[in-house]
Amino acid sequence: MAMRSIRKARGCWSFIRALHKGPEAAHAPQKEAVKRVFSGIQPTGIPHLGNYLGAIETWVRLQEEHGSVLYSIVDLHSITVPQDPAVLQQSILDMTAVLLACGINPEKSILFQQSQVSEHTQLSWILTCLVRLPRLQHLHQWKAKTATQKHGGTAGLLTYPVLQAADILLYKSTHVPVGEDQVQHMELVQDLAQGFNKKYGEFFPVPKSILTSMKKVKSLRDPSAKMSKSDPDKLATVRITDSAEEIVRKFRKAVTDFTSEVTYEPARRPGVSNLVAIHAAVTRLPVEEALRRGAGMDTARYKLLVADAVIEKFAPIKREIEKLKMDRGHLEKVLQVGSAKAKELAHPVCQDVKKLVGFL
Amino acid sequence: MAMRSIRKARGCWSFIRALHKGPEAAHAPQKEAVKRVFSGIQPTGIPHLGNYLGAIETWVRLQEEHGSVLYSIVDLHSITVPQDPAVLQQSILDMTAVLLACGINPEKSILFQQSQVSEHTQLSWILTCLVRLPRLQHLHQWKAKTATQKHGGTAGLLTYPVLQAADILLYKSTHVPVGEDQVQHMELVQDLAQGFNKKYGEFFPVPKSILTSMKKVKSLRDPSAKMSKSDPDKLATVRITDSAEEIVRKFRKAVTDFTSEVTYEPARRPGVSNLVAIHAAVTRLPVEEALRRGAGMDTARYKLLVADAVIEKFAPIKREIEKLKMDRGHLEKVLQVGSAKAKELAHPVCQDVKKLVGFL
Repeated sequence: MAMRSIRKARGCWSFIRALHKGPEAAHAPQKEAVKRVFSGIQPTGIPHLGNYLGAIETWVRLQEEHGSVLYSIVDLHSITVPQDPAVLQQSILDMTAVLLACGINPEKSILFQQSQVSEHTQLSWILTCLVRLPRLQHLHQWKAKTATQKHGGTAGLLTYPVLQAADILLYKSTHVPVGEDQVQHMELVQDLAQGFNKKYGEFFPVPKSILTSMKKVKSLRDPSAKMSKSDPDKLATVRITDSAEEIVRKFRKAVTDFTSEVTYEPARRPGVSNLVAIHAAVTRLPVEEALRRGAGMDTARYKLLVADAVIEKFAPIKREIEKLKMDRGHLEKVLQVGSAKAKELAHPVCQDVKKLVGFL
Repeated sequence: MAMRSIRKARGCWSFIRALHKGPEAAHAPQKEAVKRVFSGIQPTGIPHLGNYLGAIETWVRLQEEHGSVLYSIVDLHSITVPQDPAVLQQSILDMTAVLLACGINPEKSILFQQSQVSEHTQLSWILTCLVRLPRLQHLHQWKAKTATQKHGGTAGLLTYPVLQAADILLYKSTHVPVGEDQVQHMELVQDLAQGFNKKYGEFFPVPKSILTSMKKVKSLRDPSAKMSKSDPDKLATVRITDSAEEIVRKFRKAVTDFTSEVTYEPARRPGVSNLVAIHAAVTRLPVEEALRRGAGMDTARYKLLVADAVIEKFAPIKREIEKLKMDRGHLEKVLQVGSAKAKELAHPVCQDVKKLVGFL
């Protein structure tokens, strides 16, 4: 399944470059292909249905399929926009609870807190000295995020894609599950790996993307837009921790169209097709089977069917999150142990980098 | 003497703000004023006469006068422009030898290597998230350094003043000996300290400058310009390690004017006045006494007198540098011990910052 994603990614994304061209790669491409998976998630905000289906489910799958998998709660990234310290502190633990409840297993993945591994900012600084300013200023996300800001963004908001590159390269990661919005940032990561290797000798693998956004979940209020944590319309976004009543209410109010039949035509009927896609994804059924289950229903009744499927999917996760959140000490311990494991991997890489640069 | 500099700095530099306004400060201003001195020097290039008289002599003096003094070989800053790794590595040890030979005493000062204290980049990242991009783009040095670059400077060159702020604030430094070219950067440090304190509560002292460039040494080839490590005219700059022959040759070729008499009139006769200033500085005599010693000489003969004074000043330092450079292990040990001491101070401050930001 992961291999399929990777092959798909290879086909779709022209920016993905050959990782190794040696004979080993040619003879054992699958073993060679995924040596280490790395991904990060910001601790701010409870993940929604789109995050769950797009990223977290993939993370859980990847930890089952690959030997070395790291997932980081990237708190250093979250301060590129203002945060309340107390809220941020709680959010880090909440996100730990969410990931554990969703199935991230700290025995199989290294789940850790970015700010607890000092090597991230060290490598980031070295990479910051390799990237020209205009390269960062031309990134879509920088342009989009600062377009409305009167005094421009912070230097952190400009340079965080370099920190992202450090996050990935610090573990000599070979594969990174990313959403489509991160494609440009992955190009930067790849260029920085190649730029470093060119200057200091072959050292970093050039990491490849694993595209995680196959199941793109749309806003329930505007099916032309992605479901988003920050949507001002509270009805647009279904969060993992929403109550059954909230989930029913949000699906009831989901924007569809004036045809009552349930069909899957994303271009012509994005609203109802989004419901079908969600239904199929949470039940792990093909779209055809989801449609069969909705056959004969009008969209109003189908919305309740989908809401029920989502409630059923999230109910055990929600219970587990609540249980985990009761034991703050356990969550702290998980992060502490994970961060120590991450540091064990990061430290020798950072030392090698320092030697190459001339600091040691 | 240090107090005089500080008072002078207070008078001259309008950007210096009151550090503490409590009654303690009012009653014991001198004790209160200098709690911790921090300064940094890039390891690239052998220091010249201007660096020696402007900065290093001040550093030596400050370590005698104050209880807590840190001097950092700021190798992280040196990579904001391309470096050869082997040369950089050697330069770090060479600079250690130079500073020890000039009188920096590791028993009195903490002499350390910046890249060995991981807290510098950690705090730097947090501060990078507090500063708006235009603030950095408007700094003179960024403008000057990138004016001639076709593809713009690196992100490291843009953001290094933030790393500088982290260097200083990480030790809760109260005073920083700086040259005039660093005035704008010190304003940034002060603003970042105040900005952090405003957001997270009073934490950092707002550090003050100690102006070190009272003895501004000019280029021997163009007395309108500062003596500089990077001057393309090799005759312009006298390095600490120059041989006696080189020093004589450089002073012989020093640009003066068509008047043969030795006078001190910096505005009207910058060349010969620069020689008088150097003479006075290296012999620690008042300008009047230097002039008295040059009385009756023409500039050609006075140049040799000044060259001899410089040779005499640098001879023991040069010998000590050569001796120290023979023992690489000792230099490495000095840096290792110093860096461990610096880390002991930096770690708790960095932990406190992380708590305030919400990471712990």
